[in-house]
Formats: sequence, structure tokens, C-alpha cells
Amino acid sequence: MRKILVIGSGKSSSYLIKYFLDKAEFEKLHLTIGDINIENAKQLIGNHKNAQAIVLDVFDQQSRSNAIKEADIVVSMLPARFHIEVAKDCITYKKSMVTASYVSPEMKALDNDVKANGLIFMNEIGVDPGIDHMSAMQVIDRIRDKGGKIILFESFTGGLVAPESDNNLWNYKFTWNPRNVVVAGQGGAAKFLHEGKYKYIPYNRLFRRTEFFEIEGYGRFEAYANRDSLKYQWAYGLDKTKTLYRGTMRRVGFSRAWNMFVQLGMTDDSYTIDDSENMSYRDFVNAFLPYNPTDTVELKLRHCLKIDQDDIVWAKLEELDIFSSTKKVALKKATPAQILRKILMDTWTLKHEDKDMIVMYHKFGYELNGKTHQIDATMVTIGENQTYTAMAKTVGLPVAMATLTILNGKIKTSGVQIPITKEVYEPILKELGEYDISFVEKKVPYLGYNVFNN
Amino acid sequence: MRKILVIGSGKSSSYLIKYFLDKAEFEKLHLTIGDINIENAKQLIGNHKNAQAIVLDVFDQQSRSNAIKEADIVVSMLPARFHIEVAKDCITYKKSMVTASYVSPEMKALDNDVKANGLIFMNEIGVDPGIDHMSAMQVIDRIRDKGGKIILFESFTGGLVAPESDNNLWNYKFTWNPRNVVVAGQGGAAKFLHEGKYKYIPYNRLFRRTEFFEIEGYGRFEAYANRDSLKYQWAYGLDKTKTLYRGTMRRVGFSRAWNMFVQLGMTDDSYTIDDSENMSYRDFVNAFLPYNPTDTVELKLRHCLKIDQDDIVWAKLEELDIFSSTKKVALKKATPAQILRKILMDTWTLKHEDKDMIVMYHKFGYELNGKTHQIDATMVTIGENQTYTAMAKTVGLPVAMATLTILNGKIKTSGVQIPITKEVYEPILKELGEYDISFVEKKVPYLGYNVFNN
Repeated sequence: MRKILVIGSGKSSSYLIKYFLDKAEFEKLHLTIGDINIENAKQLIGNHKNAQAIVLDVFDQQSRSNAIKEADIVVSMLPARFHIEVAKDCITYKKSMVTASYVSPEMKALDNDVKANGLIFMNEIGVDPGIDHMSAMQVIDRIRDKGGKIILFESFTGGLVAPESDNNLWNYKFTWNPRNVVVAGQGGAAKFLHEGKYKYIPYNRLFRRTEFFEIEGYGRFEAYANRDSLKYQWAYGLDKTKTLYRGTMRRVGFSRAWNMFVQLGMTDDSYTIDDSENMSYRDFVNAFLPYNPTDTVELKLRHCLKIDQDDIVWAKLEELDIFSSTKKVALKKATPAQILRKILMDTWTLKHEDKDMIVMYHKFGYELNGKTHQIDATMVTIGENQTYTAMAKTVGLPVAMATLTILNGKIKTSGVQIPITKEVYEPILKELGEYDISFVEKKVPYLGYNVFNN
Repeated sequence: MRKILVIGSGKSSSYLIKYFLDKAEFEKLHLTIGDINIENAKQLIGNHKNAQAIVLDVFDQQSRSNAIKEADIVVSMLPARFHIEVAKDCITYKKSMVTASYVSPEMKALDNDVKANGLIFMNEIGVDPGIDHMSAMQVIDRIRDKGGKIILFESFTGGLVAPESDNNLWNYKFTWNPRNVVVAGQGGAAKFLHEGKYKYIPYNRLFRRTEFFEIEGYGRFEAYANRDSLKYQWAYGLDKTKTLYRGTMRRVGFSRAWNMFVQLGMTDDSYTIDDSENMSYRDFVNAFLPYNPTDTVELKLRHCLKIDQDDIVWAKLEELDIFSSTKKVALKKATPAQILRKILMDTWTLKHEDKDMIVMYHKFGYELNGKTHQIDATMVTIGENQTYTAMAKTVGLPVAMATLTILNGKIKTSGVQIPITKEVYEPILKELGEYDISFVEKKVPYLGYNVFNN
């Protein structure tokens, strides 16, 4: 029996656990799931004989190290900031480790220790980051192996509501942490490369500089720029690539409407609103508009944001009931972002029967034998329900597959790493295909970056 | 002989020093001016027998405490962050102290020690903060003494170019630290009270939510909200006042044009632009606009900001030569704000013969005997030249007068303080009047806050 310890059993662990349980007999796996609250874990493992749920407080050093000592490999599904203590124990007890989170500087600093012990600390192997790394590097390496040179790489991911559950004017519901959606794009200008030129978009323009694209069978999407388009330039070996752009996908029209909140100041998470507790939604809107003894909040808002009488964005606001004078904020000392999040959650929370959807879109421009070419690759995954979501599937399955691949000795390179090498992405992408997570590639004419060609 | 030590002899010390020298014989004053660079001080004191300039590095504890020990009172004209070391020495050697800077938490923390030693640490006694405190409190106290209740207080200050030197389309030149002008309004939403309602303006709307007003003889001005309108609510005793608003004054049209830089992202001081050193001004503008192989920077900018063909803001941009492809930024690893500052300094730097202007405008709304009233008070001061500026006059004279008033024992209340008590403002405002720094008061009908009545 090979013992796998999974620490954390939140929303994204359903497929992860199911994968291990389905393989338990054939692969001789025993699964221990540790969490402070084991209700969810218990439900997911049912009465499977090769699995147990244990109460584990990651801050209790004794029980944490006991659990890690017992395991053959450790999966941390905790929030990113909690990984480091687990990682240190993994070095002490010489266990490999897998996470879906970004490599923190503290994690990176363990690289020498991890290598010295011949261990593998695999990170960023969820969906984004994760499937994006693997699927991009597979195409990039294939082009390079033929002697091609990458001149353009654009990559877009979105966590959205599935078409069959898409029934509001925003074409959006919260499929992941709502706070991150509300504050998305803050903290500095978005930076990217277009045709060799560095470009910068400040937060207040971000949601008006979107690009559109089609995904066959799924219609039109838009994307706004991520802050960190150049983050993987070196890791991917794209230091000579002229166009590098990463973005977040939404349904068309979302960003232009979202920009209303940005312009009003409702996404600000840096200060608290006075007496937020007793405010109505209408009072909240009015706090960002000029005082007037008689004019309505509605007309002041239309005037402030220059919203025409027949603009659909107005209906999007009304759908949120944001002008209600009876609905109360009921949050003490709340920031504008916290209040907005609450208002949005009234309308954008997934219902039990709702399905989510993960969409990914890569564009690869390259030169080969003196000619330019382009490959567009798209992936769409739709969830089954609110337990078996597309998010849990695309995060959990690559984590689980990486864990088993490491356990089976098929990944050999030690160190703190992300899944950008063939050794890692080849077996995992192949296996993901068996679970209907795969990319559709299409050759298209290379046009270079030009906003009007999208 | 009473010995005054002035530490720091920068741009705002001309009138301060002149005041002491003019009074030196009658008031039996000896003036020591300490600075790292004493060229400016030497020029300002000429061969006056009651004055000397000494080399003084405020970080050299020995020479700093020697100089303070010798003095009867200390004036610190250093940048605000350097006051605290001087203040600690002043407690050690039991000297009173005067600054024009905001009271820092560290300065505030000295209050008990200052009181225990019977000393006076007078701060915020320049123009803004300073003259604004004194002139506002004089009217507020007068209204209260008659039994009136303040229901509205609005206050606006501007450092501008004098009408006779106002010869650019922006009606603006740098009369004070250009960096502060470029980053003005950043760091959080502006917050104020209008008719009992808290209002918030995010940075990206700040320069489009201006108010206009006239100053008789000087024409029309506008003001955008300061971040801290409620800062002195308690100090002024205005905790029941329904409208509290503080703002910064500019000539009409400045803010709408400035907003172009805000929207483009050019005022951001939080990140550096790649290869800023070799950029032309045109490249800098283009970095904030979408890539296109053929469209001009000009049309992309007009489109991005929706600038009509006949809009005067366009001529304001052209006046700055911001589309030049030959002028180079020539700053290494510069932030957008640093680059913008450089471009603006080409055009907005005061010429030797240029005069500056300080404008202040207070509105006081109050209830008295069941009726509402309003007093508007305005002050305009124009500089003589680039040494004897309006800024140096309105900052330096109140500092100098406070110093002499303390020295003459006419301010009796000890402690770390700001000039909001009669004991302080009465003699100083009276004396400022002798130097043509005085307010014109006008009774106007009280209309409450209403943007359309301004």
C-alpha cells in the first residue's frame, strides 16, 4: 500500500479524492484526508475501505508532522499561504509534495534542500496555473522541435457559468472566490508586450481594453489583461517573443458593465465606509454620487457614467437590485469591495443545479522555414453539479495525476518545480484527455497582434 | 539678545529670514541659520550684523545639539520627516520650537514631555496648513461667540501662477514640489460630508468632480476634493456640522485636462517603465495606448479618451510637446509619474520674472437665532519674484511671527499644538494684515451644499 496524505478537503477536492479512490485498488493506494473540519471529506470518501478522514490542524506541529511522517507523498490543498509549514516537514521526513498554488518565494527557497533529498515539490499544477502551463509548453516544445521560433503567445482563461445555467444579463456567476473577482486587476498597471512594445493599462482602463474571440460551439468571449503577462516569459523560454499577453475571459459585455463599479469606486478594498451596517444598497450607490436635494440616485448615476437611456448596462444594474432602498448592507465597517461582493452574491451565487465552465484559449504565432504560422488551441470543460464542478475537475485531476505519476517514479527530476517539462506534461495531458479535458487545435493565418483582427 | 536658530534655508525661507532681520535691532534678535549648504542663507542675510549662517548637518547629533543648546528658540524649515530629531533635542535643552509641517504621530507623542517642560511646539503654521487654520478658526469662533452654530464649512487653497505670469493654456505652473502635484489625490478615495451624507470620490473620478467659484477681481477657479476633508472636524469643533469639504484650487479647465493623464495611467508612481531612458515623449504616450501597425499615436489617444476634434484639451496636450518623437525621457528606470513630471517641467517651470499666487477660499454656513447665514472669505497673495514668492511669504511670515510671539511670551499655552486658539491666531492674523495677507469677507445667502448653486 502506498500512502497518500491530502491536507485540506475544500471545494476543489471532489475530483481529486474520487480519482485516488477509483485507482485505489489497482494502484494499491491508501488515502488519508486531513482537515480541521472532516465533514466534507467523510462525505466524499463514503465507506471506501482504502480511505480515512482525520482531524488535522495544520498549525498543530505535532499532529501535522505525525501525519506527514506516515505518508509516502503529500498533497496540500490548503490556501497557498499555509503550504510552507507542510513543505518544511516534507523535507524533514523526505516526502515529495504536490500543490496547485503559485510558487511563493519561501517555497522557491527550499529548492536546494528539496534537490539534496532527491524530492519533487510540484506546484502550479491545477488549472490556471497548471493546465495552462502544460498545454502551452506542449505546443511550444513541438514548434521548437520542428525548428520553429515563437513570435507570439497569448493565453486566456476564464471560470464561468455553463451555457445551460447562464440565465442572467451579466452572463456570469461566482464559480470561485468572489473576493478575488471583485478586486481583480487592482494593485498596479497591467503590463504586456505587443509586437515588441511594452504596453501598460491602468486599472481604470483595464475593463475597456478587452479583446473578443470566438470558441467554436460556445460563441463569443472577451478577455481583459492580467497584471502579469510577462511572468512566465523566461520559464517558457519566450524571451525573444514579440507579443506576450495573458488575460481573463468573460462573456462579451461583462467587462464594460463591470467598469461601472470600477469608475464609481465600488471595488476599492482599502478603506471602510462609515455606517455601512445601516446603509441600504441605494445609500451605498449614493455615497459615490454628488449630493443633491432632489435628483434621484438613478439620474445622478446615469449622468456620472454617461449611460444612455437605451444602454443594456442599465438593465444589468437593475438586475442586481442595487437601487433598492429596503435591502440593507448589514456589514459592519465594510469596505466598498466587501459591500459590492455582498450585493453581487445575492444574484451571482450558483444554485444547486447550476453548472460551471472552465474555458482556456491559447494563440501561438511562430516562424518556420521563413514563413509565419499560427495555432489556436481551445479547451472547454463543463461541471456536473455543485460538488463535481469544472473548477474542481480541472484543478483536482492534474494534482491527483501528478501525485500518482511521482509515486510511480515516472517523474524523475527533483526540485521545486512547475509543470513545464515534457516529463511532466506529456503523461498528465494524455491522461487528462481520458477525462475529456483536452485542447482543440486549429491552424489559422498569422496576422500578428492587431486588435481589429480578433 | 534673543537667539533664534533656523534650521533649513530652502525656497520658503526668504520672507522668514527677512522678517527676523528687519526686526533684529528693535526686538534684539540674533539669527543663526543652519543648513548643509549655506549659499542660499548667506545671500539672504547679506552682511547683516545680527545674523550668521553655519554649516549644520541635521544628522550630525553633536553639531545639531550644540546649535540647539545655544538658541533661545528653534525654527525647523526642514522637510517634515527630519523634524523629530530636532524636536527631541529641543526637549533635552528646553527650547520651544516652530514648524510649518503637519503634526506627525512621533511629534504628537512628545506632547506630555513638551508640557512637562513648559515648552511650546507650534506646528502647521505655514499657509496650508497654517493660515487656513487661523483664518477659519477666527470666523468660526466669532460665529460661536454670538451663539451661532456652524452647519457648513468648505475650504479651498491653491498655489498658482499669478495672472500677470499666466501665459499657458493650462493656466498653471509649478510653484511648489512638482512631484506632489503629479501624484496629488492618490492613495485612497477622497472623503467628505455633504448635508450629513458621507461621500467618496475615487481617484479616477476626482478631477471630474470639481466645483467652480469666483474670486472678485481674479475671475473663476475650480477645486477638486482633498483626501482628508474631515481631518480637522474635531480640532475645529465641527462634529455636528453637516457639510465639510476641503479642496485644492486650480484655474478652470485644469482638472478636466489633468484627468487625461490620470485616465491614461501617466500619474502612477508605483512601477517603473521598461527602457524609459531611451524613450521619446511620443513613445511614453504610446505605451499607454493599444498597439497598431499604422494608426497614429494622436488618433489612438483621441479615440481612447474620446477627445473631440475641437476640444481645447487637445491644444493643452500639444502645448506640452508630448507627441515629440525627438525629445527623450532620458531617465533611467523611471515611473510614469517621474516621466510626466519631467515633461511638464519643460513647460511649467517658473521663469525668473514669473510671479506666483496663493489663493484661499472659505465658506462658513451657520444658524443664528433660527435663521441661516453664510460668510465667504477669500485671500489672494501674489509674489514679487522667484525669491520672494507668495508661497515663501505665506509660509514664512506666520512661522516667523509665531516664533517672535512665543519668544515675547505672548503665547502661554504649552504643548505640541496647531494654531487654532485665539491666543495664537489673533496676534498673528493681525500682523499678517500689515503684510497684505488678509481675508475679504462677504455675507451671502445660505443655500446649503448644492453643486448648481456654486
